[in-house]
Amino acid sequence: MTEGHMGLTIGVDIGGTKIAAGVVDEEGTILETSKVATPSTPDAVIDAIADAVRQASAEYQVDAVGIGAPGYVDDKRANVLFTPNLSWRHEPLKDKVEQRIDLPVVIENDANAAAWGEYKFGVGTGHDDVVCITIGTGLGGGTIIGGKLHRGRFGVAAEFGHIRMVPDGLLCGCGNQGCWEQYASGRALLRYAQQRATATPDSAGILLGLGDGTSEGIEGKHISQAARQGDPVAIDSFRELARWAGAGLADLASLFDPGAFIVGGGVSDEGELVLDPIRKSYRRWLVGSRWRPHAEVLAAQLGGKAGLVGVADLARQG
Amino acid sequence: MTEGHMGLTIGVDIGGTKIAAGVVDEEGTILETSKVATPSTPDAVIDAIADAVRQASAEYQVDAVGIGAPGYVDDKRANVLFTPNLSWRHEPLKDKVEQRIDLPVVIENDANAAAWGEYKFGVGTGHDDVVCITIGTGLGGGTIIGGKLHRGRFGVAAEFGHIRMVPDGLLCGCGNQGCWEQYASGRALLRYAQQRATATPDSAGILLGLGDGTSEGIEGKHISQAARQGDPVAIDSFRELARWAGAGLADLASLFDPGAFIVGGGVSDEGELVLDPIRKSYRRWLVGSRWRPHAEVLAAQLGGKAGLVGVADLARQG
Amino acid sequence: MTEGHMGLTIGVDIGGTKIAAGVVDEEGTILETSKVATPSTPDAVIDAIADAVRQASAEYQVDAVGIGAPGYVDDKRANVLFTPNLSWRHEPLKDKVEQRIDLPVVIENDANAAAWGEYKFGVGTGHDDVVCITIGTGLGGGTIIGGKLHRGRFGVAAEFGHIRMVPDGLLCGCGNQGCWEQYASGRALLRYAQQRATATPDSAGILLGLGDGTSEGIEGKHISQAARQGDPVAIDSFRELARWAGAGLADLASLFDPGAFIVGGGVSDEGELVLDPIRKSYRRWLVGSRWRPHAEVLAAQLGGKAGLVGVADLARQG
Amino acid sequence: MTEGHMGLTIGVDIGGTKIAAGVVDEEGTILETSKVATPSTPDAVIDAIADAVRQASAEYQVDAVGIGAPGYVDDKRANVLFTPNLSWRHEPLKDKVEQRIDLPVVIENDANAAAWGEYKFGVGTGHDDVVCITIGTGLGGGTIIGGKLHRGRFGVAAEFGHIRMVPDGLLCGCGNQGCWEQYASGRALLRYAQQRATATPDSAGILLGLGDGTSEGIEGKHISQAARQGDPVAIDSFRELARWAGAGLADLASLFDPGAFIVGGGVSDEGELVLDPIRKSYRRWLVGSRWRPHAEVLAAQLGGKAGLVGVADLARQG
Repeated sequence: MTEGHMGLTIGVDIGGTKIAAGVVDEEGTILETSKVATPSTPDAVIDAIADAVRQASAEYQVDAVGIGAPGYVDDKRANVLFTPNLSWRHEPLKDKVEQRIDLPVVIENDANAAAWGEYKFGVGTGHDDVVCITIGTGLGGGTIIGGKLHRGRFGVAAEFGHIRMVPDGLLCGCGNQGCWEQYASGRALLRYAQQRATATPDSAGILLGLGDGTSEGIEGKHISQAARQGDPVAIDSFRELARWAGAGLADLASLFDPGAFIVGGGVSDEGELVLDPIRKSYRRWLVGSRWRPHAEVLAAQLGGKAGLVGVADLARQG
Repeated sequence: MTEGHMGLTIGVDIGGTKIAAGVVDEEGTILETSKVATPSTPDAVIDAIADAVRQASAEYQVDAVGIGAPGYVDDKRANVLFTPNLSWRHEPLKDKVEQRIDLPVVIENDANAAAWGEYKFGVGTGHDDVVCITIGTGLGGGTIIGGKLHRGRFGVAAEFGHIRMVPDGLLCGCGNQGCWEQYASGRALLRYAQQRATATPDSAGILLGLGDGTSEGIEGKHISQAARQGDPVAIDSFRELARWAGAGLADLASLFDPGAFIVGGGVSDEGELVLDPIRKSYRRWLVGSRWRPHAEVLAAQLGGKAGLVGVADLARQG
Repeated sequence: MTEGHMGLTIGVDIGGTKIAAGVVDEEGTILETSKVATPSTPDAVIDAIADAVRQASAEYQVDAVGIGAPGYVDDKRANVLFTPNLSWRHEPLKDKVEQRIDLPVVIENDANAAAWGEYKFGVGTGHDDVVCITIGTGLGGGTIIGGKLHRGRFGVAAEFGHIRMVPDGLLCGCGNQGCWEQYASGRALLRYAQQRATATPDSAGILLGLGDGTSEGIEGKHISQAARQGDPVAIDSFRELARWAGAGLADLASLFDPGAFIVGGGVSDEGELVLDPIRKSYRRWLVGSRWRPHAEVLAAQLGGKAGLVGVADLARQG
Repeated sequence: MTEGHMGLTIGVDIGGTKIAAGVVDEEGTILETSKVATPSTPDAVIDAIADAVRQASAEYQVDAVGIGAPGYVDDKRANVLFTPNLSWRHEPLKDKVEQRIDLPVVIENDANAAAWGEYKFGVGTGHDDVVCITIGTGLGGGTIIGGKLHRGRFGVAAEFGHIRMVPDGLLCGCGNQGCWEQYASGRALLRYAQQRATATPDSAGILLGLGDGTSEGIEGKHISQAARQGDPVAIDSFRELARWAGAGLADLASLFDPGAFIVGGGVSDEGELVLDPIRKSYRRWLVGSRWRPHAEVLAAQLGGKAGLVGVADLARQG
């Protein structure tokens, strides 16, 4: 048992393949991490969370556990109302995990957790009003208003991925059509590249050459690599993603008027390749652009750790 | 000078034709009102505001003045950054009015003021998280989060009328295209009715009969009257308005997750004729509808007084 | 061998489950029909076509065979360039069938064949310029210009189902987005009903009661039955289909300016339930509606036989 | 009176500022031209047409006169049903002009006339099936099918500018919304440039420098000049125009399946600056692109003379 650290908590990140747990101090530093494979059944996931927490906390005295969960988390920060990928429906996650480990548990939506992490320990430091979007496979978001995480009346605020960008648009897993996530996400980027490579293969030589030569064989990583090598289809695919991402940020500015936007998630790892066109599109669509102060559009700093660090801090606050 | 009232303030509402000032007590009761015609030049408007305040306060001891102004108000609640109809650009409204009257002045966006009025004294009482939309000639909005008016980092939050509902859609006065206001407002309702009456006059007999028989002669009041008499085009026009209003509320639920929506403005005076289809459309588009608590959609109670009462209360708070 | 009939030809209709062949006279009367199950491999389909032709012609002297095929047929009316469901790619259908039967063969797109059938023997009689849409599972079309089937330079004209109705809209099997077929077809009707029943089950009581009570359990036939019984969701689903179908017809009027539109396919079997709202939507969107003659919108008369009769006649013409 | 020419006819082009009449021979060569200013009242326009015809024919023996008119021309090629700019409504143009000059007169829609000119004497020579779009201030079109001008049942076919590209899109002068003309025309190009220059003036330095420095001061000619000098906003504005123009051509390919597209009008004068991105967008959206022959997309050759030469030839045919 290591002494000398006050206020350590554990943050848990439930990913599609791995569940990660980390011991985090008050400065947002991760002292210890453990990972276990994500099981396929809900109850096994809960056991795995408990295992990861136990491993991570073996050497440290921790006060609380925060769990970042995909989907809707209720206003008690205890139950997951709905998670597409894990088939959780009104799952009492807090109770079930607390039964397995002897620590207080707080549940938070994973994108909210990531937003809080960036606000508290990342690029958002110094701002009070921050809107964060996480562009990974899908699109998630979190909002900080007046220095507080904005959870909404029922705990399900900031579901940015499902605002409607296109009436009668693309089908979404949520059952609606035209959701932002269908136009500004890693999946969308892949679709843009595949559609364009199919229609105009002559302009996608580099991109197609990185895979098996077919549009179907294009993978996400090929697109950024090809864009950096000047492939017109890859560049245009990023531009299309940015067109939608920036237009959405302009809407969020009309709604939330934050001091800063933070763009995180795997897509933001591409840096200016995607941030620069997002900023341009954002400025293009910002209402009253000449007469108002502009929020900055910042790249996230913490990468994949934002959620774990963020939810650990939220657990510390109780 | 009437005694016995503590904490009286004045609320000022700048309308297109009249400037109204009212003395309001802590319960939101209007004790006295005065009205002057709205002049056409900015400086004359300021003089008129001062006149209205003086008239209203002749009989009462008041502590402060709140002014609800159209357009963007800055984070100091002092300057109007931009107002389409009055050609105000970075107008120091607070200073100019304070020079004319010997009272502290607070400026607030008029739709924010109306939202606050309904939250504090109207149908929003008892809720902490409220999103209010005001469907008048245009569409405005205001948000209460955790019992506080949400102004944003720069004072320009809740500009709901200008979120993009239709990519490449209708031109808006703000310079963008596809703004919500172009699809869910009194002007939109009129356009729906005129387009439909032109295309299918056989189904618009009642509606056309209320005016001069032409589509151009249709006025807003005809549409509600005709709808109540069963005119198919008028009913369909309300339904179209509601389709867009409800879809927007569903987006706002994903973003703000309020406990209640309040629908105010002249269009809400039509009651269930418009509220019922708005609720249906809202439910139709609400993401994850089966797995989450639903915010109520309520009709505003205070009518045209919401802004005046609201901004008077905001002035009281300093 | 029956004598006395001059100019008999055979029409073949390749359906998803059955291949039908019919001996047809110059008046469009079907004298004899045979059906065989549709095999799953391309070559077996060709054998089955030959079998069906032989059966049908056992008793009659026929001069030629016409085959209505799904997909793109080339300008020689010999080869199928592309068929989604049968994996035909540049398939020399004419040659292969002629090798098996000793008769001249003509290939035609099936929706073109149906259009010709209705024009020549159905509701289109008396018109020279006709645009026909076939709303079945998908949406197909055919055009008669100046009394001739309009095949285009390369044989692939009148692919109406794939004009873009919604930029960035629904994904289509063709690889594009927003195709008309995704909004005005039997599949679209089912989607409308399921989405609405999920979002507002209270308004879909009759509809849900016809199946297993779930949205997923809704079938196409339930929707028309429920609509006839007054189910609001079923009625609204037909209205939505009609909204898109009519808007598309208005576009086709701007492009082709026909004397009549014919609406066929399974959906048209519902009669005025769907035809009436299609006509209204068409009139709503027709450009210059007050200043131009209007094409009639007619229901097809021949039902499922239009294609077989049409392609038999096209074969007769050589 | 010059002898030796057989089959001369006169073509008349009614422009916004000038009415041009030209004597044209069977090869499409213009032998003589006269111009008069376009008057503002309908009857004066008819007088001016007669004057221009008299002047042009002073030296030549002509057999007939063709007049290219904006708007809907009826199936008798005699009456203008509807013209926005000249307030003609069911105007008996043929009769009125024939009363003033002693020659047979044929009326044709001006974009149809231009299409015929390019088909007969321009870049369309050698094709039988041609679709022509004319991108000027607005967007017009004409179709040649099997070597004949396709006029439709009522004379109003090929009104390409008014097919709906965007549901709930921009208002059009025709009363509808989302018409192609609002997205692919000279007016649209100007809007694109002005919107972008307002939103991102830093990227429009060259463009703004060609006018008075404001977005409002941008003119059409500045955009092409700035684009050639590398101005990002000007280039992007052309790309946006091309995005919509090409997507529309892809739809027309699904409908008409021509052997060639011809792009004419003032915008086509920019050559590959606009043709190249139009071709790319066309290929991007062409359905079944890998399995079908592709129509070429050609630049018009005759420039502003196409309509005059075309309508003269149509008059020759009687």
